[in-house]
Amino acid sequence: MKSRKHEFGRHYLVEFTGCDPEPLARVEVLRPLFLQAARDSGATILGSHFHQFEPQGVSAMIFIAESHFSIHTWPQDGYAAFDVLTCGTMFPERAIDFLKQGLLARKAEVSVMSRGFDE
Amino acid sequence: MKSRKHEFGRHYLVEFTGCDPEPLARVEVLRPLFLQAARDSGATILGSHFHQFEPQGVSAMIFIAESHFSIHTWPQDGYAAFDVLTCGTMFPERAIDFLKQGLLARKAEVSVMSRGFDE
Repeated sequence: MKSRKHEFGRHYLVEFTGCDPEPLARVEVLRPLFLQAARDSGATILGSHFHQFEPQGVSAMIFIAESHFSIHTWPQDGYAAFDVLTCGTMFPERAIDFLKQGLLARKAEVSVMSRGFDE
Repeated sequence: MKSRKHEFGRHYLVEFTGCDPEPLARVEVLRPLFLQAARDSGATILGSHFHQFEPQGVSAMIFIAESHFSIHTWPQDGYAAFDVLTCGTMFPERAIDFLKQGLLARKAEVSVMSRGFDE
């Protein structure tokens, strides 16, 4: 990743694959994992929002002082799209490691994008 | 952008630069613009969350059936980091065009990432 000249933050896009479908299916299972991942990263949580899709699947966002976390899940495919935008001092890698374990993901593919501008 | 073999969505990361600081500074000015951008894209809005930073700056997220919108602003730099993750039928370009005009941005630099996996 090439840093931008005026970098305001870093955006981590993570593909979790080969996951256990259970934590991806229901809000009540995913919520404590997702909130703990945010806490583990050292983020300051300002609020959160969880949405249950029927018959299964979850969308969730956590509002943090350093920007945001989001996750969107496809339990039938063992897949979750996770992102962290961080514009402050925190450790997104800790959240990624925690979720990889919590979701029993076979793989976490991480792309990091520099957010900001060059001129 | 190369599409993934199993593509679940597309993630648009947008750098708005050279913006008018006013709509970036306060929630009450940004909120109607941001919600209208989501409506213009054809998204189904499920909820939203806005946070006012002091003395200025806003973080906001819109929860949609197709995934999410987020924006984080730096009024003093005329910069906003915007993203749309879309996993359904909608038109993110319309939201980007609407916000570019609403924020009086000089430039909107758009990166599109395919979300999903290849194996």
